[in-house]
Amino acid sequence: MLTARSERVREARTLRRRATREKRGLFLAEGPQAVREAIARPDLLIEVFATPEAASQHADQLDASPAPVRLADASALASLSETVTPQGLVAVCHLLTVSLSEALGSTPRLVAVLVDAQDPGNAGTVIRCADAAGADAVILADDSVDPHGGKCVRATAGSLFHLPIVTGVDAGEVVGVLRQEGLTVLAGDGGAESDLDEAADTGLLTGPTAWLFGNEARGLPDDVVKAADRAVRVPIHGRAESLNLATAAAICLYASARAHRR
Amino acid sequence: MLTARSERVREARTLRRRATREKRGLFLAEGPQAVREAIARPDLLIEVFATPEAASQHADQLDASPAPVRLADASALASLSETVTPQGLVAVCHLLTVSLSEALGSTPRLVAVLVDAQDPGNAGTVIRCADAAGADAVILADDSVDPHGGKCVRATAGSLFHLPIVTGVDAGEVVGVLRQEGLTVLAGDGGAESDLDEAADTGLLTGPTAWLFGNEARGLPDDVVKAADRAVRVPIHGRAESLNLATAAAICLYASARAHRR
Repeated sequence: MLTARSERVREARTLRRRATREKRGLFLAEGPQAVREAIARPDLLIEVFATPEAASQHADQLDASPAPVRLADASALASLSETVTPQGLVAVCHLLTVSLSEALGSTPRLVAVLVDAQDPGNAGTVIRCADAAGADAVILADDSVDPHGGKCVRATAGSLFHLPIVTGVDAGEVVGVLRQEGLTVLAGDGGAESDLDEAADTGLLTGPTAWLFGNEARGLPDDVVKAADRAVRVPIHGRAESLNLATAAAICLYASARAHRR
Repeated sequence: MLTARSERVREARTLRRRATREKRGLFLAEGPQAVREAIARPDLLIEVFATPEAASQHADQLDASPAPVRLADASALASLSETVTPQGLVAVCHLLTVSLSEALGSTPRLVAVLVDAQDPGNAGTVIRCADAAGADAVILADDSVDPHGGKCVRATAGSLFHLPIVTGVDAGEVVGVLRQEGLTVLAGDGGAESDLDEAADTGLLTGPTAWLFGNEARGLPDDVVKAADRAVRVPIHGRAESLNLATAAAICLYASARAHRR
């Protein structure tokens, strides 16, 4: 039985740091949902750590693992976990990110772009929501948070494994490429003149669309808004000053999904 | 200058516990945004604690306070705070909740009901989003989290002060009252046959509507779904298993807001 001091566990633990994840090209996928997704990807999975309790509880799932399942004690699993109540299951996987051209390979209809998104919970929720809305890819541009961090992985609820994710790209470049690919690029911007209802009513959402969403506090940089085809705000009918990033993105992505399917 | 050990600060600190908030009928509103809302409500505000730095940074705002502003050191403010990086401003206010009949007083058109919602961040985000969508009230039914807790107050971003909030009511009773008031009661339920697009297309959303949203893990209880006029799911177009509570609620509430304004 491995412990928190075992060499393998210590090596895995270094993946809690972004720099190490990038250097080694690996990350930790925590919890039964993420581990189930990881086990379905023999091309990505390196190994699984499980407490004896979790291993017996999820035996069916772990029996199907194409990579070694290593039993470790609760303190070892806790040392790999970023949650307050670790669930006893962590997979080590290759990073999921792909290049921009791979992500946009097959005539995308709906793409979500986060520009300088800093909150991992928000970023993960947007990835989950983009997946639900049927988006073809999610792009994390400029200084956005790493989608392979523990909090973000957890917030995606498995969706990190469902659609192509791009990181390490410049927002300005991304806008250029998306427009070249024939997508209408819309900047989600609380200060925009046009609102989402107008966009839906005038047919702006019917074609292939990329949505840009900015930093939680500062929104999108001016030059990125200008580079987009149109800035669009979610209408605020009450007295709220704004919506949070993930809910605004959810409303915009679902407006596009609906327009695409009418 | 007050410190963490001053009697007033110690008394205020007891409001971090739900039982004390309910007993004393008071809560802590933390951060510049919440304190600004509190200062605009002389009927609710008891006192404000501020570090000298925060007091000078927000002098204009604090000068308008109808209640005493008490200078306290950083450790005092930290002891009142539920955030990792306290912002040096906390107001003590009367609880904001109203009775169900008060909340539904003036022919409501859009109401959000959370049933057994456990995550304060989710509950706060739904309150913020309901405010943005122009909802008339938010009802936290059954064993839902206390909206006056620090994390929830913060997630509402001020919206806690903008619309009537009801707590301590039974979901079954609420559904009965809402139907009596002439609202169509829709149960947000991932397993429902009808989806939101269908609901919008068939005119189900055009009249006064109450949306019920369930617990993050378990969803709505069966008897509550049955008591509603219709169960409606947000369509999942990709491979996500579900949406999180706050994004699903955002999508539903904005679908209603749009239907009401066409």
